[in-house]
Amino acid sequence: MLEEYIYNAYMESFENKRRGDKLEEIESIQKYIRSAKKIVIPNWTTTKVKIINKVLNEFNLNSAKHFEFPTNSADFFRMPALAKAQMALDLCDCDLVIARGRLGIPGSGSLMLFLDSKGRILTGACSASHVVHGKSLESAVYDEITECLERIGLTKE
Amino acid sequence: MLEEYIYNAYMESFENKRRGDKLEEIESIQKYIRSAKKIVIPNWTTTKVKIINKVLNEFNLNSAKHFEFPTNSADFFRMPALAKAQMALDLCDCDLVIARGRLGIPGSGSLMLFLDSKGRILTGACSASHVVHGKSLESAVYDEITECLERIGLTKE
Repeated sequence: MLEEYIYNAYMESFENKRRGDKLEEIESIQKYIRSAKKIVIPNWTTTKVKIINKVLNEFNLNSAKHFEFPTNSADFFRMPALAKAQMALDLCDCDLVIARGRLGIPGSGSLMLFLDSKGRILTGACSASHVVHGKSLESAVYDEITECLERIGLTKE
Repeated sequence: MLEEYIYNAYMESFENKRRGDKLEEIESIQKYIRSAKKIVIPNWTTTKVKIINKVLNEFNLNSAKHFEFPTNSADFFRMPALAKAQMALDLCDCDLVIARGRLGIPGSGSLMLFLDSKGRILTGACSASHVVHGKSLESAVYDEITECLERIGLTKE
C-alpha cells in the first residue's frame, strides 16, 4: 500500500510537480499504524512504555511491547533517535517501532520517531530538553506521542 | 567548543552514565547559533526565507541568506529535510544551514533542521502537513523556526 504512494510522490518530485502531502498519503500512514500488530518500543527502562501505551489506547490503537536492550550505543550516532529505532528494527520482529532518543548533538533535545517494518519514517515529534521545558519525563513523553499521532490526522476516539 | 561537550557526552554514554542534556550543552548550541555569520536557507523559492529572517531578527540573531538550487531531489531520500540540509552544506560555504523539508515518507509532514558547519544537528522542529493543520505556509514556517529556537532555550529579545 505505502509503496504505491511513495512511488507516485517520487515521480512527482522527479517531474518537479510535487506540491506537498496529499490526504490519501496521510490516510495510508494512518491505515498502516491502525493495522500494526507487532509494535515495539526500544528502551532500557519501562517508564516510557506505560505512557506510550496509555496514549495508544486513547487513540484506539494496538498496544506496544517493550523491547529491552542496552540502547546507549545509539548516542554514538549523529541522530540517536533514528539509530535507536533502526537498531530495534534490526534486532526484533515487528511491524512498527516507536523510538525516543536525542535529536542530534548533546543539548539538542529529543525526537520521537515511528518507523515501519522497512525502516521508513511515518511520523515524529521533537521536544526540548528537560532543562529547558521543565516538564516531567511522563508529561514530555505523553505530549510527544500525542503529537506524533495528531500531526498525521489521528484523533482520540 | 562543541567538540568538547560532544566528547564528554560520548564518554558518559560509553560508561552508561548519561542522564539527559545538560545546561552547558544547550548553552554551547545557543552560542554557536548566536555567533553564526554565514547562515543559509536552501530553497527554490523565497517565501520561507523572509519569514525565517523575520524570526531570526526577533531573536536578535544574524540574518540568513537564500541559497537557491533545485531542491526537489532531496525528496528521493528517506529523510528529505536532512538530505536538503546536507546538500546545502556540501554546495556552499556556510556555518549554519536552516532547512525545511519532508520528515519521512509522503504524508509524514515537515521537519525543520539546523545543521552546523560539520553537518551536526543542533535543533529542529516537526509540523503536520498542510492538509492536517490547515495553517498558511507562512504561519507554519513561523511556528517551526520559533520552536527550533525556543526549544534550545533562546528567547525573543
